[in-house]
Amino acid sequence: MGWGLKVTCLREMRRPMIDDYTKLLEKARELLLWQSISGLVQWDFETKMPQGATDQRSLQMALLEQLLHEKSVDPELGKLLASVKTSSTFKDASDIEKRNVHLIQKTYDEQTKLPADLVEQIAKEYAIAVDAWKRAKNAKDFSIFKPELEKTIDLVKKKAHYLNPDKDAYDVLVDLFEPGITVNSIAAVFEPLKKGLIPIIKKCAESSNKPNLSFLNRPVPIEIQEKISKKLMEFVQYDLKRGRLDETEHPFTQGYYDDVRICTHYYEKNFSSSMFAVLHEAGHGIYEQNIPATWMWQPIGTACSMGVHESQSRLVENIVGRSKAFWTFFLPQLKKLTGKTFKDVDMDLMVRAANDVKPSKIRIEADEVTYSLHVVLRFEMEQLIMSGKATVAELPAIWNEKMDKYFGIKIENDSEGIMQDTHWASGLFGYFPDYALGNVYDGILLETMEKKLPNWQDSIAKGDFKPVHDWMVENVHHYGNLMDPVDLIKKVTGKDIDSKPFVKYLEKKMKSVFGF
Amino acid sequence: MGWGLKVTCLREMRRPMIDDYTKLLEKARELLLWQSISGLVQWDFETKMPQGATDQRSLQMALLEQLLHEKSVDPELGKLLASVKTSSTFKDASDIEKRNVHLIQKTYDEQTKLPADLVEQIAKEYAIAVDAWKRAKNAKDFSIFKPELEKTIDLVKKKAHYLNPDKDAYDVLVDLFEPGITVNSIAAVFEPLKKGLIPIIKKCAESSNKPNLSFLNRPVPIEIQEKISKKLMEFVQYDLKRGRLDETEHPFTQGYYDDVRICTHYYEKNFSSSMFAVLHEAGHGIYEQNIPATWMWQPIGTACSMGVHESQSRLVENIVGRSKAFWTFFLPQLKKLTGKTFKDVDMDLMVRAANDVKPSKIRIEADEVTYSLHVVLRFEMEQLIMSGKATVAELPAIWNEKMDKYFGIKIENDSEGIMQDTHWASGLFGYFPDYALGNVYDGILLETMEKKLPNWQDSIAKGDFKPVHDWMVENVHHYGNLMDPVDLIKKVTGKDIDSKPFVKYLEKKMKSVFGF
Repeated sequence: MGWGLKVTCLREMRRPMIDDYTKLLEKARELLLWQSISGLVQWDFETKMPQGATDQRSLQMALLEQLLHEKSVDPELGKLLASVKTSSTFKDASDIEKRNVHLIQKTYDEQTKLPADLVEQIAKEYAIAVDAWKRAKNAKDFSIFKPELEKTIDLVKKKAHYLNPDKDAYDVLVDLFEPGITVNSIAAVFEPLKKGLIPIIKKCAESSNKPNLSFLNRPVPIEIQEKISKKLMEFVQYDLKRGRLDETEHPFTQGYYDDVRICTHYYEKNFSSSMFAVLHEAGHGIYEQNIPATWMWQPIGTACSMGVHESQSRLVENIVGRSKAFWTFFLPQLKKLTGKTFKDVDMDLMVRAANDVKPSKIRIEADEVTYSLHVVLRFEMEQLIMSGKATVAELPAIWNEKMDKYFGIKIENDSEGIMQDTHWASGLFGYFPDYALGNVYDGILLETMEKKLPNWQDSIAKGDFKPVHDWMVENVHHYGNLMDPVDLIKKVTGKDIDSKPFVKYLEKKMKSVFGF
Repeated sequence: MGWGLKVTCLREMRRPMIDDYTKLLEKARELLLWQSISGLVQWDFETKMPQGATDQRSLQMALLEQLLHEKSVDPELGKLLASVKTSSTFKDASDIEKRNVHLIQKTYDEQTKLPADLVEQIAKEYAIAVDAWKRAKNAKDFSIFKPELEKTIDLVKKKAHYLNPDKDAYDVLVDLFEPGITVNSIAAVFEPLKKGLIPIIKKCAESSNKPNLSFLNRPVPIEIQEKISKKLMEFVQYDLKRGRLDETEHPFTQGYYDDVRICTHYYEKNFSSSMFAVLHEAGHGIYEQNIPATWMWQPIGTACSMGVHESQSRLVENIVGRSKAFWTFFLPQLKKLTGKTFKDVDMDLMVRAANDVKPSKIRIEADEVTYSLHVVLRFEMEQLIMSGKATVAELPAIWNEKMDKYFGIKIENDSEGIMQDTHWASGLFGYFPDYALGNVYDGILLETMEKKLPNWQDSIAKGDFKPVHDWMVENVHHYGNLMDPVDLIKKVTGKDIDSKPFVKYLEKKMKSVFGF
């Protein structure tokens, strides 16, 4: 591998530990390279692949999966990890070196602790359960999904037990997506979050001064929306020389360092849908683009966690993109690009429409306030499921009861209730909390940022995102994966995670929008 | 590998040879899958990759290359090949099975016969020589390139010797790109080709009735050219559900079966450049799309050769796309799409402009007649180089002399002469003949097709490409890689390869264009 030689040569002269550490990094580097290739193939699948190539692409993706698995359970990795960690000089290793070793060990454990037949069973059940879920959702009939959900939960619990028999299953799972966090610490944050959100939602729902949304569905031709996207990407300093924007069904961001690609979806009669998608994905995009280049192809040179990633995308989409300051700058731009379409729309109308709050059944259609409550509900469900305090048969009724209690919404069938998301069918338990943790992190980060940049909104109003951008880079992006999320937040803000700042931020904003 | 199981089960019951044959096919299948992944990454590099990602992409491509190499020299392949071929039942194997084994053996030999240090030397010299060639071409100074070209030639000769010490080096190299063909048989075809082309070129140059080309640079907006492309792809039955069209610097086709992608390049002031590029690449595209689906992921399920591929693209681009019949159908379409731009252009003007012939210095800018002569010149140069009958120092003068003799053109510097192409710098000797062989095949195929479809031009004039399409599919595409090119031509036409039909076709067409 010619491209690995330089690193080896530079490091060869150093401490005794360093030979095996270098070999370890070399293996990690190869894995990251394969992941980046696999990511590109996945991106193509979602954006460019001709529809007829589905079968061909499944074979390609299965082969890449298989290779990635082989490479991540390579026994040589285990030997190198043991040798590095037992080396007499490991205690003198730098924080960076120790973190790299920790991250490699963590992934290696996750990949090797599971018996092969369990991995196979999970893969098989995944396909069956997702299929059953699709059929059940179509038929609005939970009973079709129920037996497969039961099997999936059993397998997920088994998986958690193999990964760490000393911890509760849900704690093990949560840690897979948001390392270092526990179910108790999430609960300690989500309980006051819920108590904070419910009254805001109620006040918004009861307000007689609701935003007027009618102008949002005025048609904006796609080619104009593309120009809007371009302006937005420029504004947030998303680097198009190291990225690109494409269209897809469900917007996402995919990439690594100098090739970070974002996607959106244009609806002619819903221009703001794509606007916020572009801001959201560009928020993810600038995170990936600004991880220190010197850490490229090392485990520390990756994003911290799903939750921290969401904090960056939502900071751009919601805290900036739905602010009065942003629209002070952008409404004139929008009017310039769209001719007479929004001639009669003033700042007040626009900002209020961008911040509408309305209880709804479906999480992915939810607004900035109700969204986190949807997530809290799922977290509570997952606790019940994983602790065995509720049977699968009982879940739909519990779901519907919570929807009524938190949102005042009656669920009429399970397809718009417990079966709306694909996560559980795919065995993804422990992933949901991250979506709301991103918001919680944002609240704390915003407080800290405002101390440093009390006039950030003035810059935004002038179309200058740079102060906020640079703050995000310096305080989040630049740390890559050097710390677990909770430690990162502590380091940057001096605070433990806490939902109060996020609730306070929402309260203030919604007060001004709904005038309660 | 779950996706391989079905094939194994189906075949398990058959002859004793079959177990190892199945294992062999399984390995071939995996290699083809990796090649298809690598092809996709390459396509992305040429079409979509952000410019900043070059370094990152080189690492990804190097890793894929390395894996492909490892998989193709897997000793297990050698063992399986030996076991299958020495099996008592191999003689009863079907033609398809024998051909698969032959193709796997051929690639395996090509990959394993070279000593590792030679492969490494070649890779290193490739990078150095291409760099020297670029600098030399910029500086118009052959002396910068000369020492690297000498080294490259030495290495290529060594490579040929390792591959087959019993054959002349150039024969070995030519066979790599056009299997089963010899230098003598190419010479036997190219000599009369040259003798046929030179007088046609001369008559065209001396004609007082030259085509009027002035309208070709009237601006056509890119979005209109995109619509033209769409019409052309529909016309040639290139399946967009299993392919796509994108833009790139130098048009190419990349893909496999259900995911075959073509590219073009739009110039506002040269609409016909993209038109003929789309026809050419779609010609390649329909070939790949129509190889029998049952042979997918088997060596026989690939195109026959570079030369045969070129015959399919040129049949569509030149024989069809530059015919009077085609423009009878397409000129009204073009006028409809371009408004008043070509209002004054009539059939005669259009067809004559599409068939202009003019001696030129640069191969890739050459027309249908002079193109093959550029190739013959290179073939003659390669014979001199590989036989050692000319030293590298002598090459530029020989090149210029031939250009004068064949085209009546004076070369003023080597950048527009011997240094115009990158092939030799990259060690690609033996590849050039394929470009003209494609034309030669076309001449013979056309004669045969006209016997079966005497009225093919009437269908084309009505916008119906189906008879020609189906003839190409039935007589070329459907054979995949079941035979070597010469055998394929013999099977379809009953003839040995011969340049007369191609020269006759050109003579007839150019007579009508230039009126000589």
